[in-house]
Amino acid sequence: MTRIAILGAAGYTALELIKILLRHPEAEIVAVTDLREGQPHVAMIHPSLNGRLDLRVENLSPAEVAARAECVFLCLPHGVSASLVPSLLDGGAKVIDFSADYRLDDPEIFAHWYDQKHGDPERLGKTVYGLPELFREQIIPSRLVANPGCYPTSTILALAPLLKAGLVSPKGIVVDSKSGVSGAGRTPRLTTHYPECNESISAYGIGRHRHTPEIDRFLSMAAGAPVEVVFTPHLVPMDRGILTTTYSRAAGDVTEEKLLDTLREFYADEPFVRVVDHLPGTKDTMGGNYCHLTARVVRGRVLTISCIDNLIKGASGAAAQNFNLLFGYPETTALF
Amino acid sequence: MTRIAILGAAGYTALELIKILLRHPEAEIVAVTDLREGQPHVAMIHPSLNGRLDLRVENLSPAEVAARAECVFLCLPHGVSASLVPSLLDGGAKVIDFSADYRLDDPEIFAHWYDQKHGDPERLGKTVYGLPELFREQIIPSRLVANPGCYPTSTILALAPLLKAGLVSPKGIVVDSKSGVSGAGRTPRLTTHYPECNESISAYGIGRHRHTPEIDRFLSMAAGAPVEVVFTPHLVPMDRGILTTTYSRAAGDVTEEKLLDTLREFYADEPFVRVVDHLPGTKDTMGGNYCHLTARVVRGRVLTISCIDNLIKGASGAAAQNFNLLFGYPETTALF
Amino acid sequence: MTRIAILGAAGYTALELIKILLRHPEAEIVAVTDLREGQPHVAMIHPSLNGRLDLRVENLSPAEVAARAECVFLCLPHGVSASLVPSLLDGGAKVIDFSADYRLDDPEIFAHWYDQKHGDPERLGKTVYGLPELFREQIIPSRLVANPGCYPTSTILALAPLLKAGLVSPKGIVVDSKSGVSGAGRTPRLTTHYPECNESISAYGIGRHRHTPEIDRFLSMAAGAPVEVVFTPHLVPMDRGILTTTYSRAAGDVTEEKLLDTLREFYADEPFVRVVDHLPGTKDTMGGNYCHLTARVVRGRVLTISCIDNLIKGASGAAAQNFNLLFGYPETTALF
Amino acid sequence: MTRIAILGAAGYTALELIKILLRHPEAEIVAVTDLREGQPHVAMIHPSLNGRLDLRVENLSPAEVAARAECVFLCLPHGVSASLVPSLLDGGAKVIDFSADYRLDDPEIFAHWYDQKHGDPERLGKTVYGLPELFREQIIPSRLVANPGCYPTSTILALAPLLKAGLVSPKGIVVDSKSGVSGAGRTPRLTTHYPECNESISAYGIGRHRHTPEIDRFLSMAAGAPVEVVFTPHLVPMDRGILTTTYSRAAGDVTEEKLLDTLREFYADEPFVRVVDHLPGTKDTMGGNYCHLTARVVRGRVLTISCIDNLIKGASGAAAQNFNLLFGYPETTALF
Repeated sequence: MTRIAILGAAGYTALELIKILLRHPEAEIVAVTDLREGQPHVAMIHPSLNGRLDLRVENLSPAEVAARAECVFLCLPHGVSASLVPSLLDGGAKVIDFSADYRLDDPEIFAHWYDQKHGDPERLGKTVYGLPELFREQIIPSRLVANPGCYPTSTILALAPLLKAGLVSPKGIVVDSKSGVSGAGRTPRLTTHYPECNESISAYGIGRHRHTPEIDRFLSMAAGAPVEVVFTPHLVPMDRGILTTTYSRAAGDVTEEKLLDTLREFYADEPFVRVVDHLPGTKDTMGGNYCHLTARVVRGRVLTISCIDNLIKGASGAAAQNFNLLFGYPETTALF
Repeated sequence: MTRIAILGAAGYTALELIKILLRHPEAEIVAVTDLREGQPHVAMIHPSLNGRLDLRVENLSPAEVAARAECVFLCLPHGVSASLVPSLLDGGAKVIDFSADYRLDDPEIFAHWYDQKHGDPERLGKTVYGLPELFREQIIPSRLVANPGCYPTSTILALAPLLKAGLVSPKGIVVDSKSGVSGAGRTPRLTTHYPECNESISAYGIGRHRHTPEIDRFLSMAAGAPVEVVFTPHLVPMDRGILTTTYSRAAGDVTEEKLLDTLREFYADEPFVRVVDHLPGTKDTMGGNYCHLTARVVRGRVLTISCIDNLIKGASGAAAQNFNLLFGYPETTALF
Repeated sequence: MTRIAILGAAGYTALELIKILLRHPEAEIVAVTDLREGQPHVAMIHPSLNGRLDLRVENLSPAEVAARAECVFLCLPHGVSASLVPSLLDGGAKVIDFSADYRLDDPEIFAHWYDQKHGDPERLGKTVYGLPELFREQIIPSRLVANPGCYPTSTILALAPLLKAGLVSPKGIVVDSKSGVSGAGRTPRLTTHYPECNESISAYGIGRHRHTPEIDRFLSMAAGAPVEVVFTPHLVPMDRGILTTTYSRAAGDVTEEKLLDTLREFYADEPFVRVVDHLPGTKDTMGGNYCHLTARVVRGRVLTISCIDNLIKGASGAAAQNFNLLFGYPETTALF
Repeated sequence: MTRIAILGAAGYTALELIKILLRHPEAEIVAVTDLREGQPHVAMIHPSLNGRLDLRVENLSPAEVAARAECVFLCLPHGVSASLVPSLLDGGAKVIDFSADYRLDDPEIFAHWYDQKHGDPERLGKTVYGLPELFREQIIPSRLVANPGCYPTSTILALAPLLKAGLVSPKGIVVDSKSGVSGAGRTPRLTTHYPECNESISAYGIGRHRHTPEIDRFLSMAAGAPVEVVFTPHLVPMDRGILTTTYSRAAGDVTEEKLLDTLREFYADEPFVRVVDHLPGTKDTMGGNYCHLTARVVRGRVLTISCIDNLIKGASGAAAQNFNLLFGYPETTALF
């Protein structure tokens, strides 16, 4: 049994994480914190937890958290995580961080995209990226894991194997992603006010979305060459799900069969990635920790289509996968 | 040509009103006001008006408004209207008020339900209720019209003819209404944040929704006897539309045929009310100024089902109808 | 470990049942059948099961099914179940039937509402109704369970305790229910074609919905007096969830406190019913086997509001609860 | 006043066309036809037309149609139009065809993409493409207009001016489009069954969508060089609206300012195209005949984002524009 704390309990990723952990036979949630005032009980923030998790929301110091919990999940804004991680690690806890604070390896790139100085630059580049399909062996012995972003997960799982195999060119990759509204968080804003975003699709953050350098970094690593994607996220009127369509130039004579074979081989032993022949929809992955993906060739261009649930495989499911790896539980525990 | 001002231009009812008036051959919008800072142009508040209405959003006094416009539409919060109406009328303008300030006839009932002292009690009870189907003759010569609430419109149109005809008992009427989210306004709140209210239906304001006394008042008038409804509004995951299901005790041997005949006769000359045999859905009325309604008898109880678009027949379409009546244009102008 | 067959695997309830059973440590799905041609594998019917359940869809006789499985779930149309149940029971299997075939106790009432002669009238009235909150002790030793309908579940859980306690009158009860579209099944029809039912709410089946006699039967049992409800279902633009609002006459001086206390006491030991103070929304119960409910008093009328996920507590979750009871597993297994 | 017939009245484009024409002071709908049996009245097919258009649905020969109507709108399947157009033109009517039958100029390309021999190959290539923003002068004197497809409209309006101005390369253009479900028509299918496509986004028809050659043709014309786009349509859970994101290589040093200036100049006198600075959403154009579009430069790639209502500017609104041009009415009549 592992004692768990969740910092930043009010958001959607925390809620999904809690639901997964409640099904985990070896996880015990012992503390949840949040800064919102006047919400004493976790079931008052998340009515669906009524009668399922009897915990008060507390306001604890990192030392108090580390004293109580062996594993700490940080569902906190970018920048805040880096201010807490050193103390949590010093206190003896292992940490799984949902923010982007430890996903990049260069403090200057971080500063450029996140408009702030990094608060813990030493750990940058030394922290493992929590995508088990690519970095399982490095995750297992870690004490800090940078849980991947949702868009990067859907993109990297689709393209990394093809770049690694040299089937697509690292130059000029277009990533056109479509996300449900939960990806925008739980803070009410006009853009996510129901009558504004319902029955509407729009692009946002073109050329400046913060997941861009994260995608660049790990696709470059796969390609062994610098990759700079053109990344366009769109907001889709649905609760959850990401569908990512990528467009790359084929490297040589590439067939769909070759693409699908390469993907199938790469993910042959992976419990949560499904390479499919048909065109998947996000609903195929809704509520599960799966990525469904396929590939096509159109007029010499390679297309990939990948789907995930942004809150599960794109956040809390991946975090639970990492938790299982960090603490020696079967990787799929609580995730089927 | 009639010069028009719209006060409170940022909401959904103002947007729909503007769209209707832009189609009106005799309406000229000359001023729009709003208190939000930093939104100089109406198309910056409502992107769909881009290139269709070239007006800056101003901050004008009632006297300035009345000097410029012959007709003023007030899309303002309850209480604010009553503070402006006297000056606007004094300035010579006719006023169509979207708020509840002039819908009731008793300042104490207003104070009870709206938690505030009424600011213009003399005009209470002397102001016509802008439901043309019931009060057309009184609207025509008026200078101030209380535009009806959305729930009351859907309820009164269904029940008033049956109460008037003595076909249902005034006692124990249940009104179960379902509304799209635009009815909650345009201010972002957690309850109307997309991932909260999408894929969910909930009741709200049970026993204390402010449309209750408005429904009571006009059903009592129709019945010639005090009516006190049990009114339950629900929030439905859709942009717009209200469906109201009412349950009353039949007064004597009432058949569906008799109910439908009574409704058909009552609305025989009405351009915007359709009595139908089938069960209507809100989409049948979406975007139009229509009310579709029907009636059923089940185990001795009379049911009515009525549908409107809450933003059109439930607000801005009715206001345009009233505008046409006040200024002598054909009642249906710009509404087909 | 219990061997399980699912007959009628193409629908939404079957899909949810499979997902629940895949999490059940003691359940092994050994056969799925369906009549659709050309869908050889269960993952071709339900893409979300890709890589999770490797079973071909078969066309088996009842004897073959009973030879292979200890527990058979029937996700079949009304009337078909009754034609298979006798052979399945004879073959030694226990049966959980999702259809309405065994929910009523009178073949004539069945014939009246379902427009067909009952195929197994002897078992009618002797089969336990699989609502564990009311009939747990009778379910445990059974070999055939009539899994409850979705609307009846939401209604009976709310009203049975209040009728039993004599707090509301059995006369003149109104049940106004709102359901997501999955309740209409998976066969494409114009009424459930996306652009028809999206952004629209409508009532249907007024006065003749087949869940009426089922609600009548079990509320009468609770009241110890005949109950005949006026039941109105509505179709809401969302995938899943039922919210039921009921209106009853208070029996004497009833307070909200008294109502809530009565409900809380009744469900004190129930793992899946939550009596809440706030007004619940269907999303609070989405994906879970819970019923959230509350009560109000308005102008002398008692209102209950109850929410369930129609596919889980309203179908497959309840079925899994019954499975656990029939085979001696902890009732909540696979359901948290 | 112009007498109008609509052939194929049961679909969504016909419904929107009727609503527009009902607002047109010079349009009189004199005949509607459809092949569905048992739907005698147009209001039985489209409940929202109740009391607004009193016409029986008929089954008329082309000669009968042409005898009665001066203008015929064909809302018919591909292939059927070409079988009727010769007789309608011979009968003296002008024809606006919603199908793809006259949009291409090469019968072989038609046969390749539409899997059928063209029925009226002589008129192929001689028929004007009804996009007034590009072909207004040719439309005015025509008797037959090929009304554009929805995806092509959103794509061509965005890219044609940039290709014409030589700001983007004609090579390697990617067109990633997202459409609401009404684009799939009104025939119920599993893919458009509400619980299947709600809360899900998916790509479809990759590499073989029939709008591809139409986009190719008119972009090639604008570029003065062969264009072969990679076109990927997606199905989005909303009723209507198309957002098209295109990716092209910049031709030389291109800035956003230059792109926007070029688009603004091109559309300076157009009543229905708005070049905006912000990123538009489909809701900005919902229900209107507008296209909102903008452009961006990201890492040397030119992006355009364009939005239309697929049923209006993408179909029936454009058709009404064409009607106005053919019959000498102001082009914007009934479209504001």
